[in-house]
This record gives sequence, structure tokens and C-alpha cells, in this order.
Amino acid sequence: MNQRVTIVENILSANDRLAAQNRLLLDQAGIFSLNFMASPGAGKTSLIERTLQAIADQLGIAVIDGDIATSLDADRAAAAGARAVQINTGGECHLDAVMLKDALDRIDLEGIDLLIVENVGNLVCPASFQLGTHKSVLIASIPEGDDKPYKYPGMYRGVDALVINKIDLLPYVPFNMDYFRSGVEVLNPGLKTFPLSCHTGEGLQSWLAWVIHEIEARRNQ
Amino acid sequence: MNQRVTIVENILSANDRLAAQNRLLLDQAGIFSLNFMASPGAGKTSLIERTLQAIADQLGIAVIDGDIATSLDADRAAAAGARAVQINTGGECHLDAVMLKDALDRIDLEGIDLLIVENVGNLVCPASFQLGTHKSVLIASIPEGDDKPYKYPGMYRGVDALVINKIDLLPYVPFNMDYFRSGVEVLNPGLKTFPLSCHTGEGLQSWLAWVIHEIEARRNQ
Repeated sequence: MNQRVTIVENILSANDRLAAQNRLLLDQAGIFSLNFMASPGAGKTSLIERTLQAIADQLGIAVIDGDIATSLDADRAAAAGARAVQINTGGECHLDAVMLKDALDRIDLEGIDLLIVENVGNLVCPASFQLGTHKSVLIASIPEGDDKPYKYPGMYRGVDALVINKIDLLPYVPFNMDYFRSGVEVLNPGLKTFPLSCHTGEGLQSWLAWVIHEIEARRNQ
Repeated sequence: MNQRVTIVENILSANDRLAAQNRLLLDQAGIFSLNFMASPGAGKTSLIERTLQAIADQLGIAVIDGDIATSLDADRAAAAGARAVQINTGGECHLDAVMLKDALDRIDLEGIDLLIVENVGNLVCPASFQLGTHKSVLIASIPEGDDKPYKYPGMYRGVDALVINKIDLLPYVPFNMDYFRSGVEVLNPGLKTFPLSCHTGEGLQSWLAWVIHEIEARRNQ
């Protein structure tokens, strides 16, 4: 009766062990790492592009892109100045620590200060798999609607920062920011949030300041 | 070595058997059924509301809503005139045939012409699980971006109709419709598409005409 549960637990615990190894590797290399998670089309790749455009001249940045298919996202990250590797999950709906380890083996980490891992676009499954990254960032977006924290609590509960993207669309879609924020606050009290627009650039400064602050805090540890 | 593969195959084949039973039950009850799939926030619930507002006075409509948590969507469907049942998947990232069977057991199907099943918001996992419904409908949305067919091919390949929602946002976001449609055409040649806006109502007539046509075609079989 419990066979299925047991197998899943074993997979997760193997994954957590590998995630701890990934973290060790990143710590030893002095790299701060972020796990970007979001619905499809919320703006993960655009936020990576904006971040690279702003700070890739001062810092070494690597990007590992997870997708079901194509290398479109890694191509965009490489064009914006990152050392980029694509993981094609071949149908899997999330990244796991094994996939990240394989990708880390394929990338030259010398001189890298920041690693951004772009997870598969999915508001459910990636929340269950630790990768070993230092902080998890959820990118929500205005046109997704203000009810998402209530309907996808697992994802909102587990993250360290929340980007609220596409605020330039607020005049055109129904979105009650107070209702949205109340849902977030219940699940993840005091969560750091960054309302911004990758399209217009509004609000990006706070986000960039947080990223740089986190990189420096890790350096001084 | 092959244990994991075998277990997954067994689960899928059990699911397919139950899906066939669901189909038989729906056919015997004379009900046409749709499986709505989409990213979180693409507009599945809004399309259900619009459909109900337009035809619930002529036809009996039932809605089964799948979500990780809450009954927000079923509440909206019930308010718009449907017989509605909520499935809370408790963390599962998709509906399967067992969940649909349980929901069908809880709903009075007498006098129902159309059943709409709203799957969990997810552009990956629901594509792998047959439910037994007659047609699958993918709801894409303009702010998700024009690259989604390329990045989530499994979902685009398997559906019978594609709604392109939020066309009212086309002036405000970068979206190349030719690029989007080329990706769709490669994966699913000749796929029926319905560009529309649930927000403004533009384009809804073609969608409604198709739904009514499919219900009548099934009645005359």
C-alpha cells in the first residue's frame, strides 16, 4: 500500500543529498545562486536579460536554463552577456538536483559571482525539488491574476523573494494588489517583494540592489 | 534499471482504462465534454464564465474544477449558472481519470448537455493524463509570450482546439502572432484556433458557435 509513497520519499531524499553537494560546490567556488521559478511566460528570461544588461559588466554571471524543449532561453541569456548552459528536461516538468549537477559540470565556474538557474515554467512541481541554490525567487506577473497565491500556495510558501512583474499592465487588467498581497502575507509573512516591469524598466533598481547586496553579503561571510 | 519506467507505464495504463470508463459514462448520459488546460492565469475560469453567461439559459452545463487548493474557481462557475464541483488535488499538478471519476460520482448529470473540466493550471503535466473527455482545449494568452508552442510542445501537440485569450493586450506587449502561429502549425497542423478576449468579449462568438456545433454534432450521432 505504501510502495508509491516510499519510492517518492527515496527519490526526494536522494535529490536533497545531491542538492547539498551542489550547494557545497557553489560555496567553495564563492558563487551566489538564485533559482528562478514562475508560470510559463511570467518573465523569468526577461528578468535575467534585464539583470545581465545592468550588472554583467561588473560581475561574472552564469545562467543555467531549464526547458522542456529548445535552447531559446539560453540563447537569450548568452546574447545578454552570460555564460549560459541549456538543460532540456525532455518532458520533465521541473529541474532537480541531478540536472543542475550535470549542468554545473558543463560550465566553467572560474570568475563567476552569480549563478541564475531558470527553472521550467510551472507553478507547481519545481517547488518540491531542492536544487542547492542559495535563494529561490518566484516571478509572478500581473496578467496571471491576483488569486494565484491562494491557488498555488506551495510555491508562494517556499520562496525567499517575490518579483511582481508586468506592473505596466496594471491599467489594462483586473488585478487587486491588496488582495494579492494579503494572500502572499498569509503564506509567507514578511516576504521581500519587488514590483517591477521588465518591459519598461520601472522598479528594476530595487531588485538589482537586492541581488548585489546578496552577492556581497556572501562574499563577506 | 527499468523499475521506474515500468511503474509509470502501469499507472498510465490504469489511468487510460479509467478514462475510457469516464467516456462511456458521458456518452451514455449524452454529455459532450471539454478538458480546459492552460498556464496559471491564462483565463480558463474567465472563459468558463463567459461561456456560461452566453449559453447556460439554453443548455445544462456542469463544471468540474481542479485546483491545488481553494474552491474559488468552482464558486465562480456556480455563480455563473453551472452545476459545479471542486476537486482539490492536494498538491498534485494535474487531474487524472480517477479524480474525474470521483467528481462525476458527486454531480447530478441529469439534464446536462455540456461538461467543462478545468484542469490544474500547468502547461506540462496535464498533457500526459487522459481524462476521458471528448475534446481538449488549450487556452493560451497573449502576455505569456509568442514562444510558448516552441517551449511546451507536448501540450500544443495534443489538443483539439486552441483559444488565444487576452487579445486586448496585443497593443501593450511584444507578441508576434505569425511566429506564434508558425510554432502551433508545426506541432498541430490545421488546429482550430479562437483568438478572443474574455475581458472585452471580442471574438467570443466563434468560440461559442464551435461549442454549440460540437454539442449538436454529438447529439445527432
